[in-house]
Amino acid sequence: MKVVYKVWLDRDGKAFGEGPFKLLKLIEKTGSLHRAAMEMKMSYRKAWLTIHSIEGKLGFPLLDKHVGGRSGGGSTITAAGTAFMKQYEGFRSDVRESLEEIYQKHFG
Amino acid sequence: MKVVYKVWLDRDGKAFGEGPFKLLKLIEKTGSLHRAAMEMKMSYRKAWLTIHSIEGKLGFPLLDKHVGGRSGGGSTITAAGTAFMKQYEGFRSDVRESLEEIYQKHFG
Repeated sequence: MKVVYKVWLDRDGKAFGEGPFKLLKLIEKTGSLHRAAMEMKMSYRKAWLTIHSIEGKLGFPLLDKHVGGRSGGGSTITAAGTAFMKQYEGFRSDVRESLEEIYQKHFG
Repeated sequence: MKVVYKVWLDRDGKAFGEGPFKLLKLIEKTGSLHRAAMEMKMSYRKAWLTIHSIEGKLGFPLLDKHVGGRSGGGSTITAAGTAFMKQYEGFRSDVRESLEEIYQKHFG
């Protein structure tokens, strides 16, 4: 047996969790919301709406959009977005460790 | 903002979690799988299948079924079932406390 879980941040509905975190990591890696959405097999529209909804719930912008230029434009994560991702990474890592410990304590 | 979660025990698929726990608590209270299912607005068939599947995954019986008699029969929780419920209660209480603490540490 093992413990399985879903944990997310909520503000009047889901605000942030594993899906959005993976999307942001892919935007960070690819420099593009379009490519990140493709890698997640998500429509660009859905990815954009996800980011937009999270920005509304968090109260700060996550993406800087660059239009045109030699690279053809793209998206980078804002400083506030990067800081939030680090915060969330610490949170999820503590959650993982703690749930495993609690499971072992009671059922191990 | 707040943290929201679903945590369950898994053995080749969901083995036990909040829904089954509530069902067992209601069986304990009402002495009847039928009445417990009704209180959860669940069909008797679904409640029975749920219990049956959990028993298979845990490897021990949860219910003693009493047929007929002055009380018209009913179900009581086995000793192993009661012990498991206590174990799960300790687990879920630690999970609740720990996730709240971790949330406060990172986002409080």
